[in-house]
Amino acid sequence: MTNGWLIAKEGFEPADIELHGSKYLLGNGFMGYRGTMEEYGAKQLVAVNLAGFFDLAENTDWRESVNAPNPLYTVIIAGDTELNLSCIKPIKHRQILDIKNGIHKRETTFFVCGANITVKAERFVSMSRKNILALRYTVIADKDVMITVKTGIDKNIWDISGRHLSYVNEVSEDNYAELICKTVQLKNRLRVFEKIIGVKNATNGNLLHIFNIDLKANKEFEFTKLGGIYHSESLDNSKTDFLNAVNSGYDVLKSEHIAVWENIWETSDVVIEGDDEAQQALRYSIYHLCSIAPHNTDRCGIPARGLSGQVYKGAAFWDTEMFMLPFFQFTDKNAARNLLMYRVNTLPGAKRKANEFGFEGAFFAWESQETGDDACTLFNVNDIFTNRPLRTYFKDKQIHISADIVFAMWDYCRTTDDYSLLLDGGLNLMYECLRFFYTYSCFKPYKNRYELLDVIGPDEYHERVNNNAFTNIMVKHAADIFLLALSRVREISPQYFKEFNKDLDWAYDFAEKLYVPQPDENGIIEQFDGYFQLEDVTPEVLKARELKENEYWGGHGLASTTRTLKQADVVMMLNVFRNEYSTVIKKANWEFYEPYTEHGSSLSACAYAIVAAEIGYIDWAYNYFMKTAKVDLTGNTKQYVGSQYIGGTHPAANGGAWNTAVLGFAGVSFTDNILDISPRLPKKWRSMKFKLNWKGDKLSITITGEQVKVCGITDTRVTVYGKEYSG
Amino acid sequence: MTNGWLIAKEGFEPADIELHGSKYLLGNGFMGYRGTMEEYGAKQLVAVNLAGFFDLAENTDWRESVNAPNPLYTVIIAGDTELNLSCIKPIKHRQILDIKNGIHKRETTFFVCGANITVKAERFVSMSRKNILALRYTVIADKDVMITVKTGIDKNIWDISGRHLSYVNEVSEDNYAELICKTVQLKNRLRVFEKIIGVKNATNGNLLHIFNIDLKANKEFEFTKLGGIYHSESLDNSKTDFLNAVNSGYDVLKSEHIAVWENIWETSDVVIEGDDEAQQALRYSIYHLCSIAPHNTDRCGIPARGLSGQVYKGAAFWDTEMFMLPFFQFTDKNAARNLLMYRVNTLPGAKRKANEFGFEGAFFAWESQETGDDACTLFNVNDIFTNRPLRTYFKDKQIHISADIVFAMWDYCRTTDDYSLLLDGGLNLMYECLRFFYTYSCFKPYKNRYELLDVIGPDEYHERVNNNAFTNIMVKHAADIFLLALSRVREISPQYFKEFNKDLDWAYDFAEKLYVPQPDENGIIEQFDGYFQLEDVTPEVLKARELKENEYWGGHGLASTTRTLKQADVVMMLNVFRNEYSTVIKKANWEFYEPYTEHGSSLSACAYAIVAAEIGYIDWAYNYFMKTAKVDLTGNTKQYVGSQYIGGTHPAANGGAWNTAVLGFAGVSFTDNILDISPRLPKKWRSMKFKLNWKGDKLSITITGEQVKVCGITDTRVTVYGKEYSG
Repeated sequence: MTNGWLIAKEGFEPADIELHGSKYLLGNGFMGYRGTMEEYGAKQLVAVNLAGFFDLAENTDWRESVNAPNPLYTVIIAGDTELNLSCIKPIKHRQILDIKNGIHKRETTFFVCGANITVKAERFVSMSRKNILALRYTVIADKDVMITVKTGIDKNIWDISGRHLSYVNEVSEDNYAELICKTVQLKNRLRVFEKIIGVKNATNGNLLHIFNIDLKANKEFEFTKLGGIYHSESLDNSKTDFLNAVNSGYDVLKSEHIAVWENIWETSDVVIEGDDEAQQALRYSIYHLCSIAPHNTDRCGIPARGLSGQVYKGAAFWDTEMFMLPFFQFTDKNAARNLLMYRVNTLPGAKRKANEFGFEGAFFAWESQETGDDACTLFNVNDIFTNRPLRTYFKDKQIHISADIVFAMWDYCRTTDDYSLLLDGGLNLMYECLRFFYTYSCFKPYKNRYELLDVIGPDEYHERVNNNAFTNIMVKHAADIFLLALSRVREISPQYFKEFNKDLDWAYDFAEKLYVPQPDENGIIEQFDGYFQLEDVTPEVLKARELKENEYWGGHGLASTTRTLKQADVVMMLNVFRNEYSTVIKKANWEFYEPYTEHGSSLSACAYAIVAAEIGYIDWAYNYFMKTAKVDLTGNTKQYVGSQYIGGTHPAANGGAWNTAVLGFAGVSFTDNILDISPRLPKKWRSMKFKLNWKGDKLSITITGEQVKVCGITDTRVTVYGKEYSG
Repeated sequence: MTNGWLIAKEGFEPADIELHGSKYLLGNGFMGYRGTMEEYGAKQLVAVNLAGFFDLAENTDWRESVNAPNPLYTVIIAGDTELNLSCIKPIKHRQILDIKNGIHKRETTFFVCGANITVKAERFVSMSRKNILALRYTVIADKDVMITVKTGIDKNIWDISGRHLSYVNEVSEDNYAELICKTVQLKNRLRVFEKIIGVKNATNGNLLHIFNIDLKANKEFEFTKLGGIYHSESLDNSKTDFLNAVNSGYDVLKSEHIAVWENIWETSDVVIEGDDEAQQALRYSIYHLCSIAPHNTDRCGIPARGLSGQVYKGAAFWDTEMFMLPFFQFTDKNAARNLLMYRVNTLPGAKRKANEFGFEGAFFAWESQETGDDACTLFNVNDIFTNRPLRTYFKDKQIHISADIVFAMWDYCRTTDDYSLLLDGGLNLMYECLRFFYTYSCFKPYKNRYELLDVIGPDEYHERVNNNAFTNIMVKHAADIFLLALSRVREISPQYFKEFNKDLDWAYDFAEKLYVPQPDENGIIEQFDGYFQLEDVTPEVLKARELKENEYWGGHGLASTTRTLKQADVVMMLNVFRNEYSTVIKKANWEFYEPYTEHGSSLSACAYAIVAAEIGYIDWAYNYFMKTAKVDLTGNTKQYVGSQYIGGTHPAANGGAWNTAVLGFAGVSFTDNILDISPRLPKKWRSMKFKLNWKGDKLSITITGEQVKVCGITDTRVTVYGKEYSG
């Protein structure tokens, strides 16, 4: 297990194809390449999933991320037999993901034509050159055998909802192939290049190169190939860029790539001593976050299933701001800023959405693609009993998304000390979000308060509720944050402040009078008005009431009239506003809501884990942590909602794992000026080491039991268990 | 057909048993007696349905009106054969309802024991003595034959949801029987008496009298019997009261009864010349209204299925105020006042309901029983696909009910000139309703208006909509009405006004700023925010989409995401506020909404009919009128919603028939001081005559074509086609 750097599997089960595609994913933020074998095709879910590149699937109104043709396609033919792992039981097979270096390897031995033929492939998606993929392919046999190699660009790739591309031009010559495609509706161009190196006498045609090898016993044959994928602004110099990569060659590219990963781990790694399983799961989670972060663009968010495919339309949800952003703001300011600037850049879409539903300001997309127009439909689930589309309310009622973004933006500013984001559109975004909430809200004159009615909170099993505690407190904070940010802008840019110049009486009134549900006499905060009146049953009871598998419990489904919740809602709120509630309140609510929580979303367990750590339920916290951190290793999640496939990677859980480790177990929290570290490590963990970027200081933190050592403090403040840290 | 006074059917079809039970109903406001045969039992849906007497069905949480044991039960046995129409095919059978006199007759000839034995029975539910039922029973054969008569009180009666009564005491002696029962939960007493007259040598026992008759060929044997049913306050002198009736005897009781009906018809009849079918249907509708009106009590409303059974729990809906009250306020002030005082008396229940849902003031029950607590559950329909209870929103979101009551109260005051209702609790009721709406409403400061969000309008297929046009305008009027009523009270009772003494700034603000949706550029008033965005399909299209019979189209059902509506909503509004919209607007909306309307409720057609008459679509109006007026004659209505039985009589349609004739065809409308008559009769109708009580004046109105003659005007004002009537 080598300290958790290698994810490896010996042997092969056909049933693993789907899971492994996600589990062994490579990515660089521009694209994701599924952990499939080089010889696989659409049926085995091969996909080069592109970030921020969306269009309709043919003959549908379903808009999702586009998968590119596969430039690494390669297969060996021996005799009449294609050495395809999905068809032939291998003698030996091993698949490895080296998460330290972002490299995928496979080694498979087939017994064909009387020989044991072993295929070894190593590939990576370049972290240094976002458009480039590289493959080193080796074959060796224990007897002399004639083989044919077929390699090139394969169009036979996985598309969830139908074809996305038509083909404009193809070139196949001189061990080189090129394919120009365009998307269905927008006719956007996608250009795919491929070049094989170290091969002679290949026949080129139909985007393929075919050549024969007279393989001698125990003598390796090896070649390398590069792929290049270009769209949007990168189209301009695409061929030059690709040929540059070809000139550099596989080894140079690999060195560059590894160097970038080294830098990533330098700032991002969390070292746990005493718990190899947790170590691996956490590193694996961090690997995923870094593989899909938008390192080079502020034009796309992180999809809810990362770059593992088209599930959830390749769209970004609140997951990014509420589950992933803490990791990035503390370890990769550039990625964090890109993610937030993506929201600034999609503000026009958010304004269109608010307007569409009759409000002012900015109502961010529940499922956000490149323009910020909402990819979420009003019919997002099919009724399993009638197969009819079910009117869902994620799009029009889950208003907390706009507050989540404001909240994350402010946290970014405070942790990085980079308030320039406010001047780059951040303040205006906050203003528009607040205006949206104000126009959405309902003022009750006789109570002299604003209320937020007819919403959905994080617990999507209860639609159209009033005064959802999570939503109300998020919006209240968004209002306060906007006013704080305004003061801050006044300080850092009087000129900007002057030009901003808006009537804000309403904003002050709203911030002052927005209702926030409070704990009742038992300390319990009601999830929404009337929640306590719902049928008092737990998920286990509902499970027993199911008439069909994969019933959707939301909508008018089984959970809707009961207390059973899909995912942390009040507990999520306690997690987010950890400094505002006492341990007593946290305990009371954690204990009250825990039995009702299905954890039907991968976003749930980490919220329970962090709050459990805070209230001293370390074993609970540890179990929920492991569930979260291992979610993409085990694949133990819902694969379907109704008839809709929702498999893939879980970046929010990946972020949640880091959050639980660092914010939960290491107990990192912060106010405007102070970073506090109040550790409560799981028993097994002898020590924990990690780095945090705190207002420009690169802190190295080592925790051993309750001992905390922090290096790198310059003029920032750090406390440990609330007491000033003195080194 | 004798001018439509007799409803008659020759012959017998077993399939008619259910329909005829409702169609041949007798009633006197205290009880309804279904049009079943004397020998029928529970299986044939025998019921003596009681007004205002409710309790749980055994072992359920279903609270509905109670059916009494049947004191008119009588059957002949010849040989070993019970002469039961539901079991034996008769030689001849005739069933007659004499609606002029409120008398039910049947004549059935059975061939048994070699003889044609004919049973003739005549019965009535006394209009002069509310607790009394009477039966004259005659039997004759064409050959000598020995028969046995079994008659008494039968406990074997129809109960929709389970047993309602247990038995406390039984007496059977001297041709007399008595049964004391109590209800399941409240243990309320119900006392049933029975006495047969003109019979010797009967064996008495088990609430039955059994005697043999040596019937001689062609010689009639006849006896009479009386039943008495008592509960609540009438229990006190029940035995005395019943024995008084016995002393009077059948013939005296019958004369008294007929005299009351004569008085009723004297004020209520509408005479149509030239259209016998319409004449009969309209008289039949009026008959039903008068049979079920609360003549003697202000403690109960009119159930949605009249007194034909326990459907809809015997509860009163908005039907009373919006569909039946116009008839009563113009023809039977006493009944109208009782109906409105019933709402005053149930105000405490309405206040409890408002409080239960977190509001102030009075939120009247959607399904109102004796206390005003809502009998409607939150799960009022079963999902036909899963057989699970479906969360419905009739109870908590159909807020227009409180405005309907305020509106009806004011119309009563204006048409009768009886403003004393305001001092008897009416003004306070209006105040409480308005307070409810104010606390329910949402103020939007940036629009400077109040909105009504998250409601259901009359069209129940669209739940939880915002700014339903009907609801908003009803509430706006309720607000205006309260302020007008307050001024009126100030005039008629300065003392009451002084004591009323409430802070009303909020009420003035609310009345001024409540948003009322206006016609768009095409003159169409959007049924609710976003209605125009719904899928543009008609009921026919939805019908074709059904997967099962009796699918519920509301909830998340087929209509919910389309423009298809259950029943008149905007058109109902145009009907109610006929003086506020131009003919152009009425036409535009009628034409727009008509194709989308399923008329899935018996309340729908009459609204379309009246507006059609107003805009000159007389043929459409006539067709909808006939549909409405004949609904209980043809039985052409939905019998099931999901798996719930909803058969019975349709008083709202009965009221709607009168409304269409008088308010629609005769064109009667009114403002505070002027009654206008602007007729537009169907072509066939040579003339139309009816009476109206207008502010104390008993007007006789005769319309011949466009000629109008009015007698009885004293100091009130009447106009014809808007011009002062000059006799």
